[in-house]
Amino acid sequence: MTLAAEGGLARELMMPWGVDIDLAEGAMAQPDRVLTRRASAMAGYYRDAAALDALIRAGDPVHYEVFEKTVPEAYGHLLLCVSKLYPGKVGDEYFFTKGHYHTVSGTAETYLCLRGQGLMLMKTASGLCEAAPMCRGRLVYVPPHWAHRSVNTGGEPLISLCVYPADAGHNYGDIESEGFPQRIVESQGKAVICT
Amino acid sequence: MTLAAEGGLARELMMPWGVDIDLAEGAMAQPDRVLTRRASAMAGYYRDAAALDALIRAGDPVHYEVFEKTVPEAYGHLLLCVSKLYPGKVGDEYFFTKGHYHTVSGTAETYLCLRGQGLMLMKTASGLCEAAPMCRGRLVYVPPHWAHRSVNTGGEPLISLCVYPADAGHNYGDIESEGFPQRIVESQGKAVICT
Repeated sequence: MTLAAEGGLARELMMPWGVDIDLAEGAMAQPDRVLTRRASAMAGYYRDAAALDALIRAGDPVHYEVFEKTVPEAYGHLLLCVSKLYPGKVGDEYFFTKGHYHTVSGTAETYLCLRGQGLMLMKTASGLCEAAPMCRGRLVYVPPHWAHRSVNTGGEPLISLCVYPADAGHNYGDIESEGFPQRIVESQGKAVICT
Repeated sequence: MTLAAEGGLARELMMPWGVDIDLAEGAMAQPDRVLTRRASAMAGYYRDAAALDALIRAGDPVHYEVFEKTVPEAYGHLLLCVSKLYPGKVGDEYFFTKGHYHTVSGTAETYLCLRGQGLMLMKTASGLCEAAPMCRGRLVYVPPHWAHRSVNTGGEPLISLCVYPADAGHNYGDIESEGFPQRIVESQGKAVICT
């Protein structure tokens, strides 16, 4: 069975490869692709639109980066990336990533936090929501059918190593229109969940 | 589509969860399952059968352990485990894991080495073989259709955090009969690849 399966896909056979992850700093050496989201990419996501505008006018800083290794976006492969979310606030709201479902919504993702402090917000289309603490060494399992957004509540970058099925895809549209029911804001110097 | 997909699987919807990985020591806190392979489980795998017998008679020490979190073994989920391979030799051959193809051979696996020194041996049914160095922070991508075996060439446990599609399965039988074309032996105090 192995022979037959391999024979049928012989042209696509990939050679093994590796990548170095700095486990102290959370940096990926030589990513194939870097996705950069500046503040201006986050229009409409935060409650305080004026505060976001001010941030954009003040230089439009990088909000988060995703460092990826590319593989075929096909069943059986695994995509891996390092997500780096910078610290900061828009008004009283901590910086977060856009968040997304997977296009093939029944696919999971593992997030291993390497650095920083924050929360993984998760929700289902049926209205369930969860907020999982993230800190160095914590691995969060985002099960199939859960949208997910990282929130940085600390003072340094929140960095995670993520692995997910390469055929999962990204569905940003549903979160762009629905948002998340929970927002994480600073109140009296502490991060609080606000619904 | 998300709603429909989730609705159809509502009974199986998993709640998010997390697990702590000690990134310095390589330990998983509270695994759901621990697979333990003692020397006696490795009969037939090493070249020097008499040396293995002596090791078994001398107390049959643990050869390697796999610490797992369990999820449904179904498409979309991801299995994660910590593999801990102890240091040692059987004759002049460094300790290794049995090695396996995935039953669904077209599924990949990521190995993030957290501790130790060694090699990931990989082979295809068509006769390709590769040996990838493993050390802390190195992530090895085992592509679809490659059997894989860890070899510990160092003096401390070789520990990796592994993620793979939960529907992959393990095919040990083919390696049990074929073996690997490469063996890693100590020669004049160094690890050398021997074919």
